[in-house]
Amino acid sequence: MPANRTDLAMECFENADGGAIPGAQVSHWETDGIEITEVQITDNEAAQLLNKPKGTYLTLECPLLLERDPDARLGMASLLAEEIDRILPAADDDSPVLVVGLGNRSITPDALGPGVVDRTLVTRHMLGAPWAQSGMNSVCAVAPGVLGITGIESMELVEALVKAVRPRAILCVDSLAARDSRRIGCTVQLTDTGIQPGAGVGNHRRALTRESVGVPVISLGMPTVIYAATLARDAFAWLADGQGDGENHEEALADMEHTLLGGQIGEMIVTPREIDAIIQDASGIIASAINRALQPTLSDAEIAAMMD
Amino acid sequence: MPANRTDLAMECFENADGGAIPGAQVSHWETDGIEITEVQITDNEAAQLLNKPKGTYLTLECPLLLERDPDARLGMASLLAEEIDRILPAADDDSPVLVVGLGNRSITPDALGPGVVDRTLVTRHMLGAPWAQSGMNSVCAVAPGVLGITGIESMELVEALVKAVRPRAILCVDSLAARDSRRIGCTVQLTDTGIQPGAGVGNHRRALTRESVGVPVISLGMPTVIYAATLARDAFAWLADGQGDGENHEEALADMEHTLLGGQIGEMIVTPREIDAIIQDASGIIASAINRALQPTLSDAEIAAMMD
Amino acid sequence: MPANRTDLAMECFENADGGAIPGAQVSHWETDGIEITEVQITDNEAAQLLNKPKGTYLTLECPLLLERDPDARLGMASLLAEEIDRILPAADDDSPVLVVGLGNRSITPDALGPGVVDRTLVTRHMLGAPWAQSGMNSVCAVAPGVLGITGIESMELVEALVKAVRPRAILCVDSLAARDSRRIGCTVQLTDTGIQPGAGVGNHRRALTRESVGVPVISLGMPTVIYAATLARDAFAWLADGQGDGENHEEALADMEHTLLGGQIGEMIVTPREIDAIIQDASGIIASAINRALQPTLSDAEIAAMMD
Amino acid sequence: MPANRTDLAMECFENADGGAIPGAQVSHWETDGIEITEVQITDNEAAQLLNKPKGTYLTLECPLLLERDPDARLGMASLLAEEIDRILPAADDDSPVLVVGLGNRSITPDALGPGVVDRTLVTRHMLGAPWAQSGMNSVCAVAPGVLGITGIESMELVEALVKAVRPRAILCVDSLAARDSRRIGCTVQLTDTGIQPGAGVGNHRRALTRESVGVPVISLGMPTVIYAATLARDAFAWLADGQGDGENHEEALADMEHTLLGGQIGEMIVTPREIDAIIQDASGIIASAINRALQPTLSDAEIAAMMD
Repeated sequence: MPANRTDLAMECFENADGGAIPGAQVSHWETDGIEITEVQITDNEAAQLLNKPKGTYLTLECPLLLERDPDARLGMASLLAEEIDRILPAADDDSPVLVVGLGNRSITPDALGPGVVDRTLVTRHMLGAPWAQSGMNSVCAVAPGVLGITGIESMELVEALVKAVRPRAILCVDSLAARDSRRIGCTVQLTDTGIQPGAGVGNHRRALTRESVGVPVISLGMPTVIYAATLARDAFAWLADGQGDGENHEEALADMEHTLLGGQIGEMIVTPREIDAIIQDASGIIASAINRALQPTLSDAEIAAMMD
Repeated sequence: MPANRTDLAMECFENADGGAIPGAQVSHWETDGIEITEVQITDNEAAQLLNKPKGTYLTLECPLLLERDPDARLGMASLLAEEIDRILPAADDDSPVLVVGLGNRSITPDALGPGVVDRTLVTRHMLGAPWAQSGMNSVCAVAPGVLGITGIESMELVEALVKAVRPRAILCVDSLAARDSRRIGCTVQLTDTGIQPGAGVGNHRRALTRESVGVPVISLGMPTVIYAATLARDAFAWLADGQGDGENHEEALADMEHTLLGGQIGEMIVTPREIDAIIQDASGIIASAINRALQPTLSDAEIAAMMD
Repeated sequence: MPANRTDLAMECFENADGGAIPGAQVSHWETDGIEITEVQITDNEAAQLLNKPKGTYLTLECPLLLERDPDARLGMASLLAEEIDRILPAADDDSPVLVVGLGNRSITPDALGPGVVDRTLVTRHMLGAPWAQSGMNSVCAVAPGVLGITGIESMELVEALVKAVRPRAILCVDSLAARDSRRIGCTVQLTDTGIQPGAGVGNHRRALTRESVGVPVISLGMPTVIYAATLARDAFAWLADGQGDGENHEEALADMEHTLLGGQIGEMIVTPREIDAIIQDASGIIASAINRALQPTLSDAEIAAMMD
Repeated sequence: MPANRTDLAMECFENADGGAIPGAQVSHWETDGIEITEVQITDNEAAQLLNKPKGTYLTLECPLLLERDPDARLGMASLLAEEIDRILPAADDDSPVLVVGLGNRSITPDALGPGVVDRTLVTRHMLGAPWAQSGMNSVCAVAPGVLGITGIESMELVEALVKAVRPRAILCVDSLAARDSRRIGCTVQLTDTGIQPGAGVGNHRRALTRESVGVPVISLGMPTVIYAATLARDAFAWLADGQGDGENHEEALADMEHTLLGGQIGEMIVTPREIDAIIQDASGIIASAINRALQPTLSDAEIAAMMD
């Protein structure tokens, strides 16, 4: 695991000391109480320096979500729906959007993807029905890592499904690791770069990108953990900096990890105590955004009625 | 739904009035307290008459299972393992057996397949590991109807997986409908004919057979329900017969169904009250038989340790 | 189990051949598409004849619930809330209403009570909080038969809780058996007679009544099963009647049960295949009615926000 | 929350700088690969200094549990059974032992207690049955914090049950917080001091002790989390010590917490990523020890058969 592991591009940028990086542009604005940061990585050197592939990364932050503010939830779902709509290629035929919920339902902070899939309106199997509404778009969904699929890697299953259902795009949902605990449960990152090996709480082994499957892969994630190692390193650096101590403290850090955490720190995660409730909440908001973006001709009430 | 709906070939045979049917052979024997019936359907006329495709159907009945007798459970798992081994093509390379657990986890009597998949030892992903035992066979498993896969038909998903993992054979597990309530929870049918459209508690829409996927499809099922309509018809026929009344009573029957069940009888099922516990129990026995048959070089204890 | 077992007083009345019974009054009306039947049993002879204790039984039937009609759901919740409010003693101090969800979560058709408790707004523990609204009533809830309470009978636990929390009334929710399958999932019975031994799908062993616990016990149930034996008896009677055969056919009936059901019929239940979804739906409607009745000063939106 | 929060008495002792404390005795030995530490706190000053009530605390540590070593699991269950037997008062009549599983099933690291209750053999309801074995002891169990009991505090429910079932002793199981991550999932603390307010992952509000309920309360816990604040403080202290910096660094620490964790650190917990599996495993081992200790005349196989 790299030092200071984060799946948020905006935190990689912070990591890089805030200075201007050629080949990477950051912009920042606010809408309806939601802070938005857009990172564009346009050349290979910037990609390597930031340890993130070239592409666009949009981050929406809304701390009020953690207080379960109803207006904040609606606002987040609404803004996220707009951004998903903007980043997804338009429907030009009947081919579906495939929603992929990555992660393992039995590891709580990794269960965001399956939770979103449970709440996504799937329509592909009903489009032929006489009562299907004419403007409805085709959507199918899969949570490849839930119990019931074993001996087959998640990405292998997704690739098999892509061949079978020939989607026009893939929308991936995953739990992420962050550096800053204030982003857990209230921040969503949307990117056109797909899923990279090693990313996410589940540390995916293979890529899921336009290159690997041949269709656009949009990925949407929310931080649910900080790695204990990342936190320890940040604490250490903070302290050293406070003392004007600019040298490399890797050795002292490893020593502390060994003393305090018995070398197990790589397996330890930091989460809020109420992470189960946070995951359930966030699944609802993200699924609501996806349903709005994928079914623009349906009202919220129509979507709810079809979900039952 | 056909009248007197049953998924057990042996009950179709009973249905046909017990007389000899050209093109269908029935034999019957007992081993260790388990009654075994083998039905062979060898020509098309018999297949049509019995409403079951040509092939071999083996039924194992063990009423003591319902009393949770430990010896009966071991005996059933052991005999079933032998029969699975006999019917499966031998492994001649590294291609896996794909275990498919059909059914819907959230409809209790349809949840046998997912329950078996949960307890099946999957090995395909570990065969490359340095600690993998040399004699271990490759197994992967999928429960296509569990939550988390939607908008994609179960059989469509299985077909996609067959293309991806190229199994040497498929072993399908499903909940069945029977006619005789004494067979619920204590009877297993093993057949080389795969899954037919309309079969099973979930009423599969597409076939899953050697013809449809290109590899042998063994199917293994246990009755978990009787259709209320089937029971009503049998009650009716029993009564009419007792009165020497040989005419066709379809009209009177329909009249009774309408009066007593408001025309809803097609949707009504009859199960034991403790069906949840029966499904859990049977999942364990069948998975144990599958694990033994697929991993003949591993002891029960080794299998258990690898399942944890 | 008595012949023709039903927990609905209105069906006992039908059972009694529809004639006028001294000491029992039936009235029938309709409101907003919901059919209402009120049975009053006022003397002991009528109670014995109908096999139900003296008291008032109100039945609300709304077949559109089974089609998940949103207006029907709202209408049912609203009317039921009014009737609960009418039957419950008024709050004159801070003592709580204790909602008791009877039944076993792991037997699907018996899981209505726990499902309602999950969705009931409990307030007793928050009434002291500074942000508690002034008009809020005290409510606590328990599902004594869920996993996690064992070796202690449900009624024993309820009695212990009554001594501890001293409720002003108990509102019991339970799954019932009916005779007519058209009532499953769309009918609610509300009565002031509490719970009798032998009643409900779980066949409670002890009473829970004003006599047994010293406070009013209102009970609210929905039919979720028909006993197979009841259905068989009704089918038999229907057939015999059609043939003008008025004699007692107990012997012939027992003979048929033995032949067709191997003597197991007492353990067999008839349910709709989609009983899991029906239970989930009904839990929501009943809990919504309870929440409205117990918290008349809160809006639906306020209740929903406090439930999260 | 006190600084350096731990529920393990042995860690409080370590906390106190290892020097001898009058009124507290520590002894340490090893049996079959399990390290045992006994802390006896015999006077009030020591109790105050160590922030733990007077009493005996036995800690069993077995790191091999985390590798799921079968021998280690058996060894731990066996030794723990012996110690439970030693600490529990002997049965002198039919009054039951009440096993209380504290914690909330829907917060993963707090779910140890409910998990143990699920696997505890409860016998109180069967002792009158003709087939009950003569030597069987009476046991009942409750998990007061699982869904289905609301508006009623866990301790209030336990008190009500104590009045109803009059147990000869209470055996409480709870998830604990530790300081040293190496103890998570492989350490059990057994004490005769019951449960104190503020203890456990769920931070119980009321005591459950011999004083509060009138019968002996044995408590048995396993660490499942470290508080992030505790870890940060330990890291800080370690670093300061390394630099010979002995002053009080509370202010600098608070500053770091604010910078890195936005003041949320009190709500953050550190767990192994696989905490769900650890809880499931530990529940089985602890329940097995309890079952052996409470039913010395039953074999493991008999216990297993009665649990089904």
